[in-house]
Amino acid sequence: MEATELQRLVAAISEEILVRVKPPQISDSAPSPLTADAPCKTCATCPHQNVESCARHTREVVTAGAARVSSCCPVAHVDPSIARLIDHTILKPEATRGDILRLCREAREHCFASVCVNPFWVSAVAAELAGSGVGVCTVVGFPLGANTTGIKRAEAESALRDGATEVDMVINIGALRSGEYDTVGSDIQQVVEVSHRGGAILKTILETALLDDNQKAIACALARMAGADFVKTSTGFGPAGATVHDVALMRLVVGPEMGVKAAGGIRTLDDLRKMVEAGATRIGASASVKIVEAASA
Amino acid sequence: MEATELQRLVAAISEEILVRVKPPQISDSAPSPLTADAPCKTCATCPHQNVESCARHTREVVTAGAARVSSCCPVAHVDPSIARLIDHTILKPEATRGDILRLCREAREHCFASVCVNPFWVSAVAAELAGSGVGVCTVVGFPLGANTTGIKRAEAESALRDGATEVDMVINIGALRSGEYDTVGSDIQQVVEVSHRGGAILKTILETALLDDNQKAIACALARMAGADFVKTSTGFGPAGATVHDVALMRLVVGPEMGVKAAGGIRTLDDLRKMVEAGATRIGASASVKIVEAASA
Repeated sequence: MEATELQRLVAAISEEILVRVKPPQISDSAPSPLTADAPCKTCATCPHQNVESCARHTREVVTAGAARVSSCCPVAHVDPSIARLIDHTILKPEATRGDILRLCREAREHCFASVCVNPFWVSAVAAELAGSGVGVCTVVGFPLGANTTGIKRAEAESALRDGATEVDMVINIGALRSGEYDTVGSDIQQVVEVSHRGGAILKTILETALLDDNQKAIACALARMAGADFVKTSTGFGPAGATVHDVALMRLVVGPEMGVKAAGGIRTLDDLRKMVEAGATRIGASASVKIVEAASA
Repeated sequence: MEATELQRLVAAISEEILVRVKPPQISDSAPSPLTADAPCKTCATCPHQNVESCARHTREVVTAGAARVSSCCPVAHVDPSIARLIDHTILKPEATRGDILRLCREAREHCFASVCVNPFWVSAVAAELAGSGVGVCTVVGFPLGANTTGIKRAEAESALRDGATEVDMVINIGALRSGEYDTVGSDIQQVVEVSHRGGAILKTILETALLDDNQKAIACALARMAGADFVKTSTGFGPAGATVHDVALMRLVVGPEMGVKAAGGIRTLDDLRKMVEAGATRIGASASVKIVEAASA
């Protein structure tokens, strides 16, 4: 799709959204994580006290348009401009405790942005990564997005208590495809509220392979209106993963200030570079070690 | 695998379980759903006041070893001995409200055992099926099983409030494969407790395609010890669905008194019959209408 076509599509969708969707209301009781005085957990435990590696400060950096942050655990052979883009990920249900601990070791060694695991493993990962500067990312409503908003909120609250610093939630795909945009927007906004109150980043997973371009753009606009920090392409469990087309479309809709995470099927340094060129500022991958080793070769 | 081999396997596994697992403790505060005086919601709303169609009474019938219960909404051209075996299912995340309402219409018309949907749709399905005698089934920890036990409990409680009469939960597959059997058993037992307190059936999904035979048998034994009503083969999102081998193994381990649900890839009447011959007493299917029409031809 040409850039001009994309711009026309986005303009048409923005018009549709303005007509059909009420902006979500931010609760007065939810302090902004960027102004709240809550202690900064990651920095407090980081041996280098480097604010740039902290999830809270990453949010500020992302908001300012610079999503590549430097590492607080520099290792000579790793290119931090690549490693700090990557959420090192195992979400397959058959992963064992041994797999999860290996993931944490690799993340410490290679200075990845975060380790991304299912909720059951969050407390173990938080303990393993304490003081490393590597974020603790987990998933909510995953991978179908078809839980109630109340349960998605409870999942985020539970994950934050267990030590998560980043939350990747799946939108209500069925409601979006049913045209129930208020439901979709409120669902995102309520999990954003819980996550920000706990000082965590919130990424909104669209599962782009199940949506047409119109629906993808509407979802991005809803995520932006709801105050999400990132939009993310895919769960890795859908019929397909990230594409350059989808990343470019998402970047166009959310503008320069939000993060865009490409996930699903990114297995090589070349895959990663194509996604970054299209506008991605974070990458979800399982082959992360292979990717950074290729960058160092 | 021959029957004698299976019996040897089960004997060895039972011995292993007795050595390694503490039996879960049932809370004194949880009344038995079979003796509690809570009103029987399904029967109360069923125009025929037929106790056999009620989830609570289905539990009694299943416990007595007869899982095929008669329908309270007889339609001449439907064979109730087939239709009442089937949980008419849509769990794909892209299903729209229109798809869900069609599922409910088909379930009423064909007298299926239940409609099985994701949690977001439970309240709508309960409203559509009120008075029909068709159960309202939903899923917990689905499809990865890797949520915390606290969230699985909250999911079950939320679903029961929304009108669910049957809960299909995914076990903690990663913990099972890590040999953490106490965790797996307690996870099941706590969701059983919540479900039974609300008068609902609890089915335990193993995701057999991710387990070896030893792990499948251990999971069945843990489900039985935890008081689950059924073991179920698959989510439909794993690498493979139900097999005759797995259903026979599961039936052998759980004995004649528990239900066995075969799900995933059952698309024809012939598929259904093979599963029932192997020991299945409930079938999860999306092609349910085609299956019962073939039985009536």
